[in-house]
Amino acid sequence: MSQNKIGAQSFIFRNPISITETACIVGPKEGEGPLAGYFDIVEKEWMANEKTWEKAESAYMKTCLDLLLSKAALQPSDIDVIIAGDLLNQSTSSTFGARDSNVPYLGIFGACSTFGEGLGLSATLIDGGFIEKAVTSVSSHYCTAEKTFRLPLELGTQRAMTASWTVSGNGSVLITSGGNGPFITGFTPGKIVDMGMKNPSNMGAAMAPAAADTILNHLSDFCRTPDYYDMIVTGDLGSVGSELLIELCKCKNVDISKQHNDCGVLIFDANKQDTHAGGSGCACSAVTFSGYLYKQMKNREIDRILFVPTGALMSTVSNQQGESIPAVAHAVVIESARE
Amino acid sequence: MSQNKIGAQSFIFRNPISITETACIVGPKEGEGPLAGYFDIVEKEWMANEKTWEKAESAYMKTCLDLLLSKAALQPSDIDVIIAGDLLNQSTSSTFGARDSNVPYLGIFGACSTFGEGLGLSATLIDGGFIEKAVTSVSSHYCTAEKTFRLPLELGTQRAMTASWTVSGNGSVLITSGGNGPFITGFTPGKIVDMGMKNPSNMGAAMAPAAADTILNHLSDFCRTPDYYDMIVTGDLGSVGSELLIELCKCKNVDISKQHNDCGVLIFDANKQDTHAGGSGCACSAVTFSGYLYKQMKNREIDRILFVPTGALMSTVSNQQGESIPAVAHAVVIESARE
Repeated sequence: MSQNKIGAQSFIFRNPISITETACIVGPKEGEGPLAGYFDIVEKEWMANEKTWEKAESAYMKTCLDLLLSKAALQPSDIDVIIAGDLLNQSTSSTFGARDSNVPYLGIFGACSTFGEGLGLSATLIDGGFIEKAVTSVSSHYCTAEKTFRLPLELGTQRAMTASWTVSGNGSVLITSGGNGPFITGFTPGKIVDMGMKNPSNMGAAMAPAAADTILNHLSDFCRTPDYYDMIVTGDLGSVGSELLIELCKCKNVDISKQHNDCGVLIFDANKQDTHAGGSGCACSAVTFSGYLYKQMKNREIDRILFVPTGALMSTVSNQQGESIPAVAHAVVIESARE
Repeated sequence: MSQNKIGAQSFIFRNPISITETACIVGPKEGEGPLAGYFDIVEKEWMANEKTWEKAESAYMKTCLDLLLSKAALQPSDIDVIIAGDLLNQSTSSTFGARDSNVPYLGIFGACSTFGEGLGLSATLIDGGFIEKAVTSVSSHYCTAEKTFRLPLELGTQRAMTASWTVSGNGSVLITSGGNGPFITGFTPGKIVDMGMKNPSNMGAAMAPAAADTILNHLSDFCRTPDYYDMIVTGDLGSVGSELLIELCKCKNVDISKQHNDCGVLIFDANKQDTHAGGSGCACSAVTFSGYLYKQMKNREIDRILFVPTGALMSTVSNQQGESIPAVAHAVVIESARE
């Protein structure tokens, strides 16, 4: 019965499933970066006219959902399901961002890999014939993430050179049955990999082994070599994690150095913007895809990407328990044209 | 293309999908309740030989996963995907419980409705032909939940009569393509409903409107009356929420009073056990199903249930923001025999 499983752990989508529209909103820091021109809305203030950073994070999602629907000329009632998640405790931003939508809601959590999980599940529900239109929406915020996972911003602590800068924003995409693409054609849900890293200021190193595991399994499942893809784009490994990923793949005789790029590297100019290892957070891959990569694909500047949002599955609780940082990465195949 | 959508927001599964095996572990309080004899493992101590409550909660899941696989005579490599979630910040128990499994992992979050979301998504992935075997696993723990959502246990604060008692434990189920049932035949993912309730010691009242919304939409989507079901079982409304649910349905001219029961009411003897409104938490519906309801169905004492885990989507963050408690409920149709 599992005619849509391919290899050991991947799904193949036999029906056309398009990413029909995207919307993204970012904070001021992202608005000063190299991708600034690609984002729909750049907020000038972290607070986005709300009273707290947390409320701002929910507001990002709400604004972005409204924008997505307006760009697609749809009403909330046209959407079959919203699949959403974020980093704020029990997915707080997503709950409150989706609260007034009156659309069936499936909460997911994959830390910064959440966007990949959402794209994969959305495509799965459509390909299985259960729904026609899904929205995947994920958010993060620099100020809420720093106080949750690292140190209170008010301390003004010097950041480690291996640390990344959590992207503030929300990326939302509309995924539909049929359409003109770009098409989601495959999905490899990842396994949890934990190599014992404990430093929340070096998440690239914690996540690189999970990214390598998923990418290698994906290529093996689909019997593909890296050059099948124009780009293999990880979510938020940053410069440190990206180097490790390429090295880890080389150890398995797979060279992805020509195809690989990382949303965390793309979104900031690390030298000018003092972001050190690069961008991170749920929104890092979501806004880089929704803003930049999607438009590149629409213009046929790139045709095939393996999109691999990466997540460090840590929490204040796991840290307080002295635990290491488990990681997971989910790979989504996105192609401008179907074969 | 959405030939498996039924009504406005429900899915119908056209292939046989069985709940082939279940496993459950509970804490000492549940072991003194009326369902004690149905649980696979009753821990005598909250800590379950771990150093902290949080580690105990992860250990519950790990033990329960091992037990499930051993009961089903399967290896982890036989499982296509684990779908899991809990209440501990960023799904900490699930991450660490599944960390060593080496099985593709999809994290979900629906608060105490998580078990329903997991069952529904598992069935969806199987029916769509993407996988053959899924495990859904959810956990909660009284001691970790009280300190997260209400008050530190050390204070010894008197509990409100509307308060529920979070179930400590893990319920895990193996869902497979084919098999001899009980069969998952339908799924209605719920919408977020927020009526402005702010009291974390009265979650039944916060969740009842979401349960009513999902149940009424489910019955309408499938063109069924409540008497199609032997039981309509909510997750953890407790006595307060159950009364409200029946009332809310009556306002829409649907009488579910004969069919309705609630896992939170079933799992404790509120008078003898001082649990006030009843049981709650992710594990409440999961262990009550895995232990009690599943065996009732296997013995054909009940044949058709509409199983509706209910979730209060709150967090310390939402509480600190002065926010109300949004809720969601997901409905899963489980039948001993397929028509």
